[in-house]
Amino acid sequence: MTRYEKQRNFLKSNFNEFKNIKTDKMKGIPQPDSIKSYDSQSKIVVLPRVSEETVTNSNIYKCIGNRRSTRLYAEKSMNLDELSYLLWATQGITETNKAGLTLRTVPCSGATHSFETYLFIMNVDGIQKGIYRYLPVEHKLLFMFELDEIDNKIDEITLDQPFVPNFAKKAAVLFAWSTTPYRSEWKFDITAHKKILIDVGHVCQNLYLASESIKAGACAIGIYDQKMIDTLLGLDGDEEFIIYLAAVGKKKE
Amino acid sequence: MTRYEKQRNFLKSNFNEFKNIKTDKMKGIPQPDSIKSYDSQSKIVVLPRVSEETVTNSNIYKCIGNRRSTRLYAEKSMNLDELSYLLWATQGITETNKAGLTLRTVPCSGATHSFETYLFIMNVDGIQKGIYRYLPVEHKLLFMFELDEIDNKIDEITLDQPFVPNFAKKAAVLFAWSTTPYRSEWKFDITAHKKILIDVGHVCQNLYLASESIKAGACAIGIYDQKMIDTLLGLDGDEEFIIYLAAVGKKKE
Repeated sequence: MTRYEKQRNFLKSNFNEFKNIKTDKMKGIPQPDSIKSYDSQSKIVVLPRVSEETVTNSNIYKCIGNRRSTRLYAEKSMNLDELSYLLWATQGITETNKAGLTLRTVPCSGATHSFETYLFIMNVDGIQKGIYRYLPVEHKLLFMFELDEIDNKIDEITLDQPFVPNFAKKAAVLFAWSTTPYRSEWKFDITAHKKILIDVGHVCQNLYLASESIKAGACAIGIYDQKMIDTLLGLDGDEEFIIYLAAVGKKKE
Repeated sequence: MTRYEKQRNFLKSNFNEFKNIKTDKMKGIPQPDSIKSYDSQSKIVVLPRVSEETVTNSNIYKCIGNRRSTRLYAEKSMNLDELSYLLWATQGITETNKAGLTLRTVPCSGATHSFETYLFIMNVDGIQKGIYRYLPVEHKLLFMFELDEIDNKIDEITLDQPFVPNFAKKAAVLFAWSTTPYRSEWKFDITAHKKILIDVGHVCQNLYLASESIKAGACAIGIYDQKMIDTLLGLDGDEEFIIYLAAVGKKKE
């Protein structure tokens, strides 16, 4: 065994070790809220209805074949139809089942959907720059706050680490996905965490392909300052914290 | 902090803790092989050239919107064109860059692509039942071995655990992705493992959408008997081991 043993074991499905676990669900503890609540006095932005007409490169074969992590963007804004489509493609609710669980455009172990989507909006027509949260049930945006020098702040969040170029601040929008792990732990206990990471990969791949389909490009970012972004977004860093980022912008012609 | 503290911390990007790490790459240790080798005497199956004509539901908007985890399959075989397309969509090499790194239909941190794709083929026209490995550079299949009662074996691998129905044995093919973690650890050290899980999520989401585009359905499986499947495939369970599965079959009309 190498010095990576513990980390590698996290990737495995050693269910023999887990057989005697009683999850909180099994114990009869009530299920936690499946979606983060918000103050009804908040400023809400209605998103345009998601429409197939927004999609300009609709051929999935080409979207898959042409996908690249895109770090050079055109100096062009996205529009609100496109942002609405990307949010739907990544976390949109397409059905609610009898048990009240949401089924979405992306699969999620046990339909626990532990994610919230935060947006750093920099260059989207018809909406002011700032920090927003996606409300999947309503398909609306919650305006959180304005941020001075938003692009430099993004640089700080992502650039102080090695290997990260400063492309993200030139994007039209930065997606930042948080997890509220207890939503999944309640059902899966200590087997939840592997699932959460795989599931956010599902989400981000839809962002990649949906971006290709509107002549935009995405680039995922796994290296960021955990404390800085959690603090900025008002997340406590334990019950909810950011796990993955992705920048999106229109492609150069 | 809850009792999940350690597991939750695995999901974070606490790079302050990692600042003093010297990766094997930094130390000048040679890069490990990026693709698993094979005996040139092996039985190889040539796959049909990937073609857009295989795609019957090419509209990405509909593929995203209609995606469901599919556990009921038609009693119908897939064909080899379709399997070829699914392999390309999930791990196909679309470019090799100047540094010799492969760029694929799916993004991967540092283009380290630590995955190998194993297939349990049960009902695909023109290819015998059995266990195969995908060779991404050649876009071919390596025949590994026949397996008696392959469907019951899959049941055993996935069903002895709670919550898993026995749909996988009725699929046309079961994908099983392994990781060879050192390919990523060489570059990212102990930050590799979070990335590996997210990246296999990217892969599987392409399987979901590509399946939709050929009137098939996929269902990911995160619960499986680690030791049983590693042993079956001849993986040592440390330097290479399975991390995620997905069943695919044609949809009922």
